[in-house]
Amino acid sequence: MGEASKMVSVEEALEILLKAAQRLPPVTVPLHVALGKILAQDVAAPDPLPPYPASIKDGYAVVASDGPGEYPVITESRAGDDAIDVTVTPGTIAYVTTGGPIPNGADAVVQVEDTLLVESAVGGPKRVRVLKQVAKGLDIRPVGSDIAKGDVVLKSGDHLGAAEIGLLATVGITAVKVYPTPKIAVLSTGDELVEPTNESLNRGQIRDSNRAMILAAAVQQNCEVVDLGIAHDNEEEIETIFDRAFSSGIDILITSGGVSMGDRDFVKPLLEKRGKLHFHKVCMKPGKPITFAEIPCGSTESKAGKKILAFGLPGNPVSCLVCFHLFVVPTIRRLSGWIHPHLPRVHARLKHSVKADRVRPEFHRATVRWEFTKDAEISGFVAESTGHQISSRLLSMKSANALLELPPTGNSIPAGTSVVAIIISDIIGFSGTHNLPSSVTVP
Amino acid sequence: MGEASKMVSVEEALEILLKAAQRLPPVTVPLHVALGKILAQDVAAPDPLPPYPASIKDGYAVVASDGPGEYPVITESRAGDDAIDVTVTPGTIAYVTTGGPIPNGADAVVQVEDTLLVESAVGGPKRVRVLKQVAKGLDIRPVGSDIAKGDVVLKSGDHLGAAEIGLLATVGITAVKVYPTPKIAVLSTGDELVEPTNESLNRGQIRDSNRAMILAAAVQQNCEVVDLGIAHDNEEEIETIFDRAFSSGIDILITSGGVSMGDRDFVKPLLEKRGKLHFHKVCMKPGKPITFAEIPCGSTESKAGKKILAFGLPGNPVSCLVCFHLFVVPTIRRLSGWIHPHLPRVHARLKHSVKADRVRPEFHRATVRWEFTKDAEISGFVAESTGHQISSRLLSMKSANALLELPPTGNSIPAGTSVVAIIISDIIGFSGTHNLPSSVTVP
Ligand SMILES: [Mg+2]
Ligand SMILES: [Mg+2]
Repeated sequence: MGEASKMVSVEEALEILLKAAQRLPPVTVPLHVALGKILAQDVAAPDPLPPYPASIKDGYAVVASDGPGEYPVITESRAGDDAIDVTVTPGTIAYVTTGGPIPNGADAVVQVEDTLLVESAVGGPKRVRVLKQVAKGLDIRPVGSDIAKGDVVLKSGDHLGAAEIGLLATVGITAVKVYPTPKIAVLSTGDELVEPTNESLNRGQIRDSNRAMILAAAVQQNCEVVDLGIAHDNEEEIETIFDRAFSSGIDILITSGGVSMGDRDFVKPLLEKRGKLHFHKVCMKPGKPITFAEIPCGSTESKAGKKILAFGLPGNPVSCLVCFHLFVVPTIRRLSGWIHPHLPRVHARLKHSVKADRVRPEFHRATVRWEFTKDAEISGFVAESTGHQISSRLLSMKSANALLELPPTGNSIPAGTSVVAIIISDIIGFSGTHNLPSSVTVP
Repeated sequence: MGEASKMVSVEEALEILLKAAQRLPPVTVPLHVALGKILAQDVAAPDPLPPYPASIKDGYAVVASDGPGEYPVITESRAGDDAIDVTVTPGTIAYVTTGGPIPNGADAVVQVEDTLLVESAVGGPKRVRVLKQVAKGLDIRPVGSDIAKGDVVLKSGDHLGAAEIGLLATVGITAVKVYPTPKIAVLSTGDELVEPTNESLNRGQIRDSNRAMILAAAVQQNCEVVDLGIAHDNEEEIETIFDRAFSSGIDILITSGGVSMGDRDFVKPLLEKRGKLHFHKVCMKPGKPITFAEIPCGSTESKAGKKILAFGLPGNPVSCLVCFHLFVVPTIRRLSGWIHPHLPRVHARLKHSVKADRVRPEFHRATVRWEFTKDAEISGFVAESTGHQISSRLLSMKSANALLELPPTGNSIPAGTSVVAIIISDIIGFSGTHNLPSSVTVP
């Protein structure tokens, strides 16, 4: 068995994973598909923004040195080719609107609030009283003041959120090179498992929760997913499903169950048979039995060199989801082109005391939220345990948005202590109190 | 004009919005659609979990009082109806696997690591040496120890993430009542706007960035979106588009542009004409001109009582996106059933000094990240400004994951000061340094 047989630390496991994971080849996609992905090219502006001197206000373009007084409005310049061949000479002004072009000759804008419309003769030009002296350049955005022509507005490696999509549209990019997110297949294994649709359970049966849960977790990471169903603890059946999955264009295979010490735990030997086993035990609680292997996938010429990353996650639902967050999420991010694929860590003060394991580093499920006080000095994250931590108890993952990293001291850590919290879900979850069982209004 | 003509504060605007916004009627959807939504029912477990006494380990079910010694393995109980009518009597043991049922008579499990397989006669029962004294109950999960029959595992108001989807599957729920997310239509207005596909710009033209940006921002809030295109600054054209949108089953209308002081700013008067105008100016920087109106939508019998919430956002891209976050996001959340729809606020230390506006509360765009040091006392959020804050400069929203709330003192706030940061995007953005321009590796 060699190297792969020994137990690795969480840090070693992550290092192995991220060495094996390589970002996927970039693809060119339209903007709505690019949202949420990582840019795989630099993007430069083909023209300046604004492309013309633009008004910041609704009002009148003036010659600043003219100063307050009554002036004829010689043109109205709102957009497009309005006032294209009109020049604002001293003693005249032009109507302009926010974002519209400043006519030639004008060098400042007086906002409409600082003017008065003057009664004028029917058919004659509109006349306006300017009430305020303005400085040259006031309320004009010079050409290129927001973006100069040629400016690199986005770089390879940038995350594409809504603002970045807006920037791409601004510079005229409607299709862009990004790293795709991986395609993930999910299989549950175990003779005890039945579909969640089963209303009543026979002896020894439980409903399969891992598959729906891991599919959901992968979707939350923007991945395309494939549901491989439930496999019995039968070597041939699992092997057939694996081979079908390996040739279906997936990037990641995730199984749950079948990685323990049982005589019908076939996931690890089957992955070892098809590829390179990197580890199958990680020193952590929950989740010790977790298998990681690289499966070469060069059966057809076109896919030569492609490999599939295979994770055999534990069958206990909590272990399964914790391992997904700690190991699969950074892998997904690396494949998706993230420069920093690691989960964010913060400090949080314990709301209640918690007990650390004696032997293995523990990842204690908790709800972390920002305790907001007027005094910034005492504001900070607080962490509330989700309760009994046995790895079969999925309720301990309910509303959990963090894993508290507890070193293996065997000690009870008192309330008020600052611990390291690994954030596993959206920030949204930790500010509002909506996730805290104690504060949910019971109807 | 009355009440609606005066300028309201951000807090007043939010109060008005959230009073007008009511959660949408619940719908029953399959689990994969329920992901990310808010539960609109309580969910109780129809059966206990585990439904049978289950082994926590791979090993042997024993009578604990037997103690160490050599025993015959009388049955193998892995799952389903294995060993259904076999009883483990004193002096015998049964093979069990993780998650499998404990046969009648046994009262503890000895893990396989604490046993030795003994050579046995061909055809005779397998014999195993138990090496360790175990306590009664060891490594057995009693019936209902994870979830008792009838336990309410999820409550109305709960967010459905991956763990919650797993819980629903566990208790046999495959379709569930949730609050739907709103359907949002997005329109850009302005004679200066052209489609982003335009490679070259004529005088006075700019590409429309707001629509792609706001559509993306709405998609990030899990909303269904409708693209209404670009409207000219033409009253009839806008009115026609509005009426078409109002009868298309949308919950929210978002326009950008046309809400300023210009003579062709038709959004506000048209919304006022069709419904109840609540406000059209909010005291804030950026974003002062923002219109909010409720549009009754009772044209057909079936939709009587339904109303559309209409937002006239400013045309400047930064003002537009800032107003979307501050006002539209809480509205979306309220419609989607969130109990606490407000954006999360944290404290963050300024990396550099920033200057506050003299008159209006300012929402300064920044990248906030957790500065992680070994010493929890000095760990905390730091905020880095995205640079020049003019509201036309969309680059100031690039990589921004927070709005720093600066009271209108006109003062320069020195580096190191703690300020309030409103978090507008995923926590993912603020831990890794991938969002900070300074740390992105330039290829
Ligand atoms: Mg199993
Ligand atoms: Mg306009």
